[in-house]
Amino acid sequence: MRLSGPAWTASLALDRLGMGWIGRWPDHLVAGDRLRAQVEAILRTWGMAEEHIAITLEHLLYADRHGIDSHGCGMLLAYQRDLARGFLTMRPNIQTIRETSTTALIDGGGGLGHVPSDAAMRLAIGKAREAGVGIVAVRNSGHFGAAGSYVSLAAREGLLGAAVTNTALPSVVPTFGLQAMLGTNPIAFAAPARRNHPFLLDMATSTAALGRLTTAWRRGRSIPEGWALTREGRPETNPRRAVLGRRLTPLGSSRKMGGHKGYGLAAMVEVLTGVLPGLPHPGRAPGARGPIGHCFAAVDPGRFCGPDEFKDGMDDLMDSLRACPPANGAEPVLVAGDPEYEAASRRDRHGISIPRAVVEDIRAICRDSGAEFLLDTRP
Amino acid sequence: MRLSGPAWTASLALDRLGMGWIGRWPDHLVAGDRLRAQVEAILRTWGMAEEHIAITLEHLLYADRHGIDSHGCGMLLAYQRDLARGFLTMRPNIQTIRETSTTALIDGGGGLGHVPSDAAMRLAIGKAREAGVGIVAVRNSGHFGAAGSYVSLAAREGLLGAAVTNTALPSVVPTFGLQAMLGTNPIAFAAPARRNHPFLLDMATSTAALGRLTTAWRRGRSIPEGWALTREGRPETNPRRAVLGRRLTPLGSSRKMGGHKGYGLAAMVEVLTGVLPGLPHPGRAPGARGPIGHCFAAVDPGRFCGPDEFKDGMDDLMDSLRACPPANGAEPVLVAGDPEYEAASRRDRHGISIPRAVVEDIRAICRDSGAEFLLDTRP
Repeated sequence: MRLSGPAWTASLALDRLGMGWIGRWPDHLVAGDRLRAQVEAILRTWGMAEEHIAITLEHLLYADRHGIDSHGCGMLLAYQRDLARGFLTMRPNIQTIRETSTTALIDGGGGLGHVPSDAAMRLAIGKAREAGVGIVAVRNSGHFGAAGSYVSLAAREGLLGAAVTNTALPSVVPTFGLQAMLGTNPIAFAAPARRNHPFLLDMATSTAALGRLTTAWRRGRSIPEGWALTREGRPETNPRRAVLGRRLTPLGSSRKMGGHKGYGLAAMVEVLTGVLPGLPHPGRAPGARGPIGHCFAAVDPGRFCGPDEFKDGMDDLMDSLRACPPANGAEPVLVAGDPEYEAASRRDRHGISIPRAVVEDIRAICRDSGAEFLLDTRP
Repeated sequence: MRLSGPAWTASLALDRLGMGWIGRWPDHLVAGDRLRAQVEAILRTWGMAEEHIAITLEHLLYADRHGIDSHGCGMLLAYQRDLARGFLTMRPNIQTIRETSTTALIDGGGGLGHVPSDAAMRLAIGKAREAGVGIVAVRNSGHFGAAGSYVSLAAREGLLGAAVTNTALPSVVPTFGLQAMLGTNPIAFAAPARRNHPFLLDMATSTAALGRLTTAWRRGRSIPEGWALTREGRPETNPRRAVLGRRLTPLGSSRKMGGHKGYGLAAMVEVLTGVLPGLPHPGRAPGARGPIGHCFAAVDPGRFCGPDEFKDGMDDLMDSLRACPPANGAEPVLVAGDPEYEAASRRDRHGISIPRAVVEDIRAICRDSGAEFLLDTRP
């Protein structure tokens, strides 16, 4: 089978074993520190270069802390499989291929994406401080976790940050097409405010992220018409078939509802993450694995309206959006990032809730790799 | 009444006169040169500065030539109304407020957006040539036509181009909200290829552009559920009420189908076009007119994979996407820009088809302004 990526996690393994019921167990609560120690132990037994472990942990655990469950420790099984099949090295040679005062191209050396992406975003931030703008592309990289983790670095420094990535396997079907040709190609964008958390957009350019399909499968629920397609291009509502088929619709879904725009955005991301860093586009035949690329940008708002004016303006905008009259009194209007910050605040207090199926994956990874299993105790 | 923008064109005027039937007349075919002469005559009688006329014509007529009918000569009635109400000057003082080697901030002086936007994109292009990247924001501007016209300038020079704008009036309702808070805030992106026309994405971040609602009204058709909302937040399928109500959904429509992503993109565009150039966000109360801002970027792909490698890579990507098996043999998979290039090629040969209602608007504008009416003769 040629499957990897967020979709290929516990659910699939459990389904093959006829153990789908485990997905309906209550989630496991783990303190952030303990989860960190667990992932650290695994990365170390996998042989990750010591200087890469802390950086990988920072970005990998950002996803778990911020409620983006499909992109944190839930990815470890996929990483283990890629490692076993030789698609991934734990000792990559990360190199800066080309650099100017505003741009750079980094080669990720075929490892996980977190470390070259951290380097790329920090390089872009430095260039934005010096030159106003920095854009750094990365080629021959791997899965980098949640894009929001990198743009948050820029916002923390008072800069605008943007990040995009493609994926190893195509999963999005172009408008009028029958076959997945592009990844879920997420876009992340952050902007700092004074009183508010930074504006933080982190979105797949598909209608629904693969992780939501996996969750529906795990929970035994069908998915809405318009998220995924059958081989014949009709709506697929069975989440298991949708995950295995990997034929997601682009944001907007049908042509009538603007699906060509989501397709256009996914293709734009492929331009920035595949073509710009010089990766071949392999035609993206079903099941064909492509090299992963990313692109990061940082911009100094002080060069435009001024840094203080910018932060005040962001507060005005965000306050104004949240003050929009709600359609339903129970659901206030949110601003991009609100769900993530709320999850982080809740999980810092009460621990990180991990689906039981992912805990069992991690137990199996520990058994295979010889890492100590640390998730048995509740926080 | 406080209405302007693409929605406020002939249809509304005709509807008030009880003349909706005129919208069902066949379109009028006009040679490109004649339409150019007509718009030129109008801009001149409106008192536009002579050095601004050719630039405005270039970008205004780009829309008509490329089939983006809502953003070209169909906007003249709205411009006339803004002029009459003092919202628009034909003699703007366009100034560069701040400039560095990679960035600039331009003040549009309250005129139409075409001239300051042309200046901004050309400035960004020059900076991208020298420094690798150029980003130029514009404040106190006006409607700039089709965003694709500016990014095409960059692609023609072998550069990546990006353009975003907000709008004078809010028309997009945030997810979970009841009131329009953001414009249709389009995103345009272009990238040059060798054998293909440039990749050219030009999309509103709403599910449907206002122009499509106006077209449905003009043609006496209902609009699909999910494009617009009633005052109570329910689906609005009457295009007249949808145009007058200005409560469009963000791309994705409902929360279930990813509407929060379109909302996030629209807000991101507001950050780049409102906050970054230092415009106040006026709370966007219904009917409240806000100042318009834009942001333009150009990037030299030669600093990454190299200019030749980039163009070849774009050809590979575009050829590969077009080779995707089609769901319906009659509708091939397209690449962003294909419909626009096809329209331009057809209209260059056969003339530009203008809805009869717009021809009548232009006749009225000529009568009011004293410009000669030139559209009576067929091409």
